[in-house]
Amino acid sequence: MKILFKNANILDVDTMTLSLGSVVVENDIIKYVGKDVPLSSYGQVIDCEQNILMPGFVDAHCHSAMTLLRGVGDDKTLQSWQEVVNPMEDSLAKDDVYWGTKLAVLEYLANGITSIEEGYFVNDEIIKAVEESGLRARIGFGPTTRDYKGSLEDFLQSQLDLFKDVDSNRIKPCVFVHSIYVTNTEEIEKCVDFSAKHNLPMSIHLSETLEEVGNCTVQNGGLTPPQYLESLGFFDRKTLCYHCVNMDKDDLQILADYNANICTCPSSNIKLASGIAPVYAMQNKGINITIGTDGASSNNCLDMFKEMFLVATLSKVSIKDASVVHAEDVLKMATINGANALGFNCGEIKVGKKADIIVVDIHCPHMYPHDNLISSLVYSARGSDVKLTMVDGKILYKDGKYTNENIDLIYKKVNEIRERLKR
Amino acid sequence: MKILFKNANILDVDTMTLSLGSVVVENDIIKYVGKDVPLSSYGQVIDCEQNILMPGFVDAHCHSAMTLLRGVGDDKTLQSWQEVVNPMEDSLAKDDVYWGTKLAVLEYLANGITSIEEGYFVNDEIIKAVEESGLRARIGFGPTTRDYKGSLEDFLQSQLDLFKDVDSNRIKPCVFVHSIYVTNTEEIEKCVDFSAKHNLPMSIHLSETLEEVGNCTVQNGGLTPPQYLESLGFFDRKTLCYHCVNMDKDDLQILADYNANICTCPSSNIKLASGIAPVYAMQNKGINITIGTDGASSNNCLDMFKEMFLVATLSKVSIKDASVVHAEDVLKMATINGANALGFNCGEIKVGKKADIIVVDIHCPHMYPHDNLISSLVYSARGSDVKLTMVDGKILYKDGKYTNENIDLIYKKVNEIRERLKR
Repeated sequence: MKILFKNANILDVDTMTLSLGSVVVENDIIKYVGKDVPLSSYGQVIDCEQNILMPGFVDAHCHSAMTLLRGVGDDKTLQSWQEVVNPMEDSLAKDDVYWGTKLAVLEYLANGITSIEEGYFVNDEIIKAVEESGLRARIGFGPTTRDYKGSLEDFLQSQLDLFKDVDSNRIKPCVFVHSIYVTNTEEIEKCVDFSAKHNLPMSIHLSETLEEVGNCTVQNGGLTPPQYLESLGFFDRKTLCYHCVNMDKDDLQILADYNANICTCPSSNIKLASGIAPVYAMQNKGINITIGTDGASSNNCLDMFKEMFLVATLSKVSIKDASVVHAEDVLKMATINGANALGFNCGEIKVGKKADIIVVDIHCPHMYPHDNLISSLVYSARGSDVKLTMVDGKILYKDGKYTNENIDLIYKKVNEIRERLKR
Repeated sequence: MKILFKNANILDVDTMTLSLGSVVVENDIIKYVGKDVPLSSYGQVIDCEQNILMPGFVDAHCHSAMTLLRGVGDDKTLQSWQEVVNPMEDSLAKDDVYWGTKLAVLEYLANGITSIEEGYFVNDEIIKAVEESGLRARIGFGPTTRDYKGSLEDFLQSQLDLFKDVDSNRIKPCVFVHSIYVTNTEEIEKCVDFSAKHNLPMSIHLSETLEEVGNCTVQNGGLTPPQYLESLGFFDRKTLCYHCVNMDKDDLQILADYNANICTCPSSNIKLASGIAPVYAMQNKGINITIGTDGASSNNCLDMFKEMFLVATLSKVSIKDASVVHAEDVLKMATINGANALGFNCGEIKVGKKADIIVVDIHCPHMYPHDNLISSLVYSARGSDVKLTMVDGKILYKDGKYTNENIDLIYKKVNEIRERLKR
């Protein structure tokens, strides 16, 4: 089926310019981008009314089902937060993870997020929810998954097997080493071996808190978390490191040397008081920086517009220079950089790319005047400005309505689950 | 006319609890708040569908017409920002300020802001726009107003005269000393005298940047901005101090001793790299803290939900303690504290209070589960969740429609003005 988007303000993430024109999507691929309206027979024609047509956001780090724990443990220290959150997570039923992921899907689609990197547990339920949703996702598995029993190699293989029958075009696996503070050296080494054997990328929470950094240096002969991981061959793999808040220049140099990708999660980091990531320093090292929401339990909503605003402004205030980390930079982080880190052929509006497309309303008060819409995308817009979300050529959300999701059932289920968890 | 809100989740800002019930408004006043549905004949009955009914937000510091300059001077140092913004402001026609204020009104109402403190220039145009809008406002005038010519006393009197025929129930004047860096000692003293003579409150930008603090101490024998103002009798007046980012404990003690009010503007402060205000220290001094957007040229959208999120989370990260400055605290800052600072009888849902009421949607993905809606108001909600905005007993915005505003004309005008300013 062929779909025509006409009268659109098309964002080119290379040049960071907007130009009026059309986009043609055939099946899952962008077939035309330009000023003209190609003559053809279309299954659907969408008049964008000069709204912004841009690549969907890539949320490069999220624990989707933690939507179930939204507002649990707010305004508490990280330790007190864990004391409330962990027992509730332990009592999650398999099915709960499915419904929590479904609630996250509603937020992703409404807010224009088309790809995610997921790291939680009960992966069969997560895969089921993501497959149904139509989202693009890289889903992590590893030894901290609650389901882990017996030999680690066997467990990893059984997790990888879960992906056998999924649409590998949309859903891919990665090895998720939760963090150095809950995974021991032997486990990390086995994960690296497994990742190498199956040619899988790896992800990890890294240098999120000062406590993590301090404990690592004490326990590992003075090595910082990146130095410790380097000694285990971790960075020889294709890696994505979440948070990276408490890193000095030497730490960042290691990540740069190995072409590691970083995912910054600003709202989670400030709400949990972990710190402000040195994004400007990361840029100066040439590191591929992506953006993640982390999860509704710590951030507390899955809106990449909020995160983009924060990446830019927190960078400015943390080094007292309003001229660093521009709107254009964070728009790339939230789109093409994320796609590159996750290994998906999307994140830009170009012929041959996967059709992961969103339309953002510019006919609302906070987007006027229309003189600098790139700035307004980052500093004024919000998730609710998204009018349409297409993933892999399929329209999954349009004008407040979902194509695949039964919102009333999801709302009912998550309220019931939360009531049960509280007991 | 009597209006009934039924089936509402009513926020009590004293106890910070929500309870299901009804609210009755008669003319401009809240007449009933409780579980029952009082029998009466109503001109209008609104079923709130269990959404949150709460006081409208008080935006305690804004330069409304700077919506015209949204996205001008982004990603620049404060000095470069001023070099771009100031000439454009200088070339604003009288009429432009009216249209810029109208655009801000659209944002205020859509985002649930019912009262503002305004500080700009061409006050006759501002008053006209605010009167038409139905908003509640305290509007500042002072020597930095562009229109200032001749003797300061005469000018101040002429400005005060502008308020003669306005609805004093909704619109009140205050003396706006822009800042110590653009107003000299003699002018500040004359403003204090005028304020005392006419029993008017006073407002000022204070200790916004380190540069301001440094210059003040150099030019005034080592006095910090609060010490300098104290020496001029400024704090003997009822005062509202904007920003207060770069203040130490002694500075804050001065403000506490004089019962000065503070307005914190977090998004502007981080975007312009001014710093993070010591809100937790302000709380510990018992200071009445309010929240402001500052203006679309520096923040870049007039959404108090965004500001509430930032006040709480920036406080946490700046002192590395996630347990300080709670959701409940910032909800008070954004409502009742603002009303108290501005001297308006609103900011809470109580019998006898002015009917400044908003209804916030809880039936959207980022507000589920419904277990901790106070948290979700601060950490998850956004301006677009506002379904209804009532000021002074009048519904000014409902389900995306404005009662008084011609949005297409406003949009057209502000785009034209911006095109002209760029030349």
